[in-house]
Amino acid sequence: MFLGYHRTQSGVFMGAHLSFADQEKAHELWEAIGFFSIKGWAPATSTNYSLRLSEPERFLISRSGVDKARFQKSDLIVIDANGVIDPADAAPSIKASAETQIHTAIYQRFPQVQCVLHTHSVLGTWLSQKFVKAWEIKFSDWEILKGLSGIQTHLTTVVLPVVNNHQDMKDILAEMESHWPNQPHGFLIAGHGLYTWGTSVAEAKRHIETFEFLFELKQLGT
Amino acid sequence: MFLGYHRTQSGVFMGAHLSFADQEKAHELWEAIGFFSIKGWAPATSTNYSLRLSEPERFLISRSGVDKARFQKSDLIVIDANGVIDPADAAPSIKASAETQIHTAIYQRFPQVQCVLHTHSVLGTWLSQKFVKAWEIKFSDWEILKGLSGIQTHLTTVVLPVVNNHQDMKDILAEMESHWPNQPHGFLIAGHGLYTWGTSVAEAKRHIETFEFLFELKQLGT
Amino acid sequence: MFLGYHRTQSGVFMGAHLSFADQEKAHELWEAIGFFSIKGWAPATSTNYSLRLSEPERFLISRSGVDKARFQKSDLIVIDANGVIDPADAAPSIKASAETQIHTAIYQRFPQVQCVLHTHSVLGTWLSQKFVKAWEIKFSDWEILKGLSGIQTHLTTVVLPVVNNHQDMKDILAEMESHWPNQPHGFLIAGHGLYTWGTSVAEAKRHIETFEFLFELKQLGT
Amino acid sequence: MFLGYHRTQSGVFMGAHLSFADQEKAHELWEAIGFFSIKGWAPATSTNYSLRLSEPERFLISRSGVDKARFQKSDLIVIDANGVIDPADAAPSIKASAETQIHTAIYQRFPQVQCVLHTHSVLGTWLSQKFVKAWEIKFSDWEILKGLSGIQTHLTTVVLPVVNNHQDMKDILAEMESHWPNQPHGFLIAGHGLYTWGTSVAEAKRHIETFEFLFELKQLGT
Repeated sequence: MFLGYHRTQSGVFMGAHLSFADQEKAHELWEAIGFFSIKGWAPATSTNYSLRLSEPERFLISRSGVDKARFQKSDLIVIDANGVIDPADAAPSIKASAETQIHTAIYQRFPQVQCVLHTHSVLGTWLSQKFVKAWEIKFSDWEILKGLSGIQTHLTTVVLPVVNNHQDMKDILAEMESHWPNQPHGFLIAGHGLYTWGTSVAEAKRHIETFEFLFELKQLGT
Repeated sequence: MFLGYHRTQSGVFMGAHLSFADQEKAHELWEAIGFFSIKGWAPATSTNYSLRLSEPERFLISRSGVDKARFQKSDLIVIDANGVIDPADAAPSIKASAETQIHTAIYQRFPQVQCVLHTHSVLGTWLSQKFVKAWEIKFSDWEILKGLSGIQTHLTTVVLPVVNNHQDMKDILAEMESHWPNQPHGFLIAGHGLYTWGTSVAEAKRHIETFEFLFELKQLGT
Repeated sequence: MFLGYHRTQSGVFMGAHLSFADQEKAHELWEAIGFFSIKGWAPATSTNYSLRLSEPERFLISRSGVDKARFQKSDLIVIDANGVIDPADAAPSIKASAETQIHTAIYQRFPQVQCVLHTHSVLGTWLSQKFVKAWEIKFSDWEILKGLSGIQTHLTTVVLPVVNNHQDMKDILAEMESHWPNQPHGFLIAGHGLYTWGTSVAEAKRHIETFEFLFELKQLGT
Repeated sequence: MFLGYHRTQSGVFMGAHLSFADQEKAHELWEAIGFFSIKGWAPATSTNYSLRLSEPERFLISRSGVDKARFQKSDLIVIDANGVIDPADAAPSIKASAETQIHTAIYQRFPQVQCVLHTHSVLGTWLSQKFVKAWEIKFSDWEILKGLSGIQTHLTTVVLPVVNNHQDMKDILAEMESHWPNQPHGFLIAGHGLYTWGTSVAEAKRHIETFEFLFELKQLGT
């Protein structure tokens, strides 16, 4: 709703040094963030988003603490594989997302992944807490499951891992380790929200929409 | 929300060879798709939409795999009664909807139908699974029933068929065969969503809105 | 959402012969209709709206069968106290709302009323059916009750009458007769929706929002 | 949605005599009000909003009785610490919010507070009534709690006070007195809605979004 009519005071689009192809992807990511905000899946400056840039070991990630209803393209900043901000984007007031480590770990684990999205919807938060002891949520036989990459039939069961919430990102990732061999499409952090990814911004966004739809079905019961 | 500010890279409006009357209808269909997307009834690139063109045995149908929040008029492509894409619209990356057969079968079955719409709301999906064993859902005595063509009083019962979900569209249609003599206004595919149609885009859209409203009433209980 | 970017084919604003003050009110009413549409309180071409014009015994009313998401100012037409369309607005395709009689009866009953609004939300529809045997719904002690004209404290009980749905508007009005001495702020028609009114468009809209808020509270339970 | 396209008849931006920095804050507050309106947290002309101006003992506050879907910057008026309207903004039709006293009391109690926001959502209203006898609502272990200033870990319990609704603002404030030593982030008035505040418009808005998110989780149950 509010996207685009608010301007940065600096007026600088930080991604201006990106290639044309990367700027196209950044635009698509910014549109997706606006979509999530309108849906109510990005409340209270929570959530974070990134994409892999064409230059090796370089990523664009949302900076910390920004209201997603007012998020601008210039709030996407360049980091390296260790999460260090590119000098061109660095400023005292600018911090990469507190969860940068999760993003970089996903890119390292899945070399084909181009985009990582983390939303924080009410239902994802609520269900993750409800299912954390089971350490997973199962979804079966819904047509919408085909929204997940590689799923060709609704006659299947998809397992979404749920890990405990920890203050230290390393502990979250350590708990994820045992889930990763199963090639999940994403995971929930208990009481916190959803991570998913894809080989493009469009695919990652489709995964978010698919899981949020499945969360609504789960809440209604079967 | 996002309708219209994103442009195709080709910049070509594929329907440019349509008659003026057909372009008006295409515009109205595109507006309806935007409306369904904002409502949350077209998540994760699901759903498909078509209309009958003025030239015999020619139809406009949404192409496969497009995010409905970013859907453009050029994502509507021309097909014939067998679902074959018009050479003017053909390109390696363009596929007609996987459910094209359902659309063409409806046009063949009901010669007066001008528009077929398929949405995929949470409640339609959930109710269809709940009622698939009954093979139908009944709605009675609501004023909104007058939103369905031919219904003149709320003192009536409307039956919405529910068919099982199959991977092969032919199996879905075969199951529909036994329902069609009852002249339904639409049908649900279990765990999948709603098909409805009308003698105009406006009438078909009104049918979608009527059924979605009835789904909400059904979920609240009576 | 879609308001304003769709144009009538005729391009004629039917209300062009209205006084400036009446055109201001018509604009405000048209904005309110867009608001109700976005809220989902005006589905499937249902609902109708009117205002009293400055000329005696003349009213502006929404014409029948228009999608409220595409409603234009030119879809407001001038009628007299008997519901007869002004010759300047008459055309074969144009009908006043089927419920015009309810509007004109309210204007006759309450001379100070300037605007009558009828919405058709899921909760209003559902609650009206649930409470029709009690013939009323009571709301007590909520701050939002002050949204109703004349209510100065939340420490009060407001009674909203519920009448049975009838095909003939005269039967609905006959049933309303016995409620009117209690000076209600509006009434529900069972399975059908809400009528309310006010001494201005703003007041009538505030009444709609107040009742819809109360419906949500009622559904949550106390 | 409707923000910005409706103009005041006077065409005067009442805050035109504000400093540039204050005008920036006023713009941000006006955006936040539009956001709350779209969310449905500001129905039926309810709710009120203010910010501390750079000049000592001067505040900008929303004037009474305005539809928040049509709220304009010129509906923000300047008051002093006693709630008296600045002569430049005074007019017979203009009243400061009926709850001005609550705003000025919060600014006096917390000198660092720059912005006070009061919303009126269905869930806040409903929960406040449900928990008024307990005189508080507790929220524990949710990640979103970090949306509240000073909260660094989700492993905590936040207490939101609930006070009874009174016609006289002084009685509401008297009841708040006993809660204030606990340094709450906000409070609920039973059957009425939420007050929260912050050291900036952005922080206060983040608090609103955090509490609304927590209300939805509470309604779903644990």
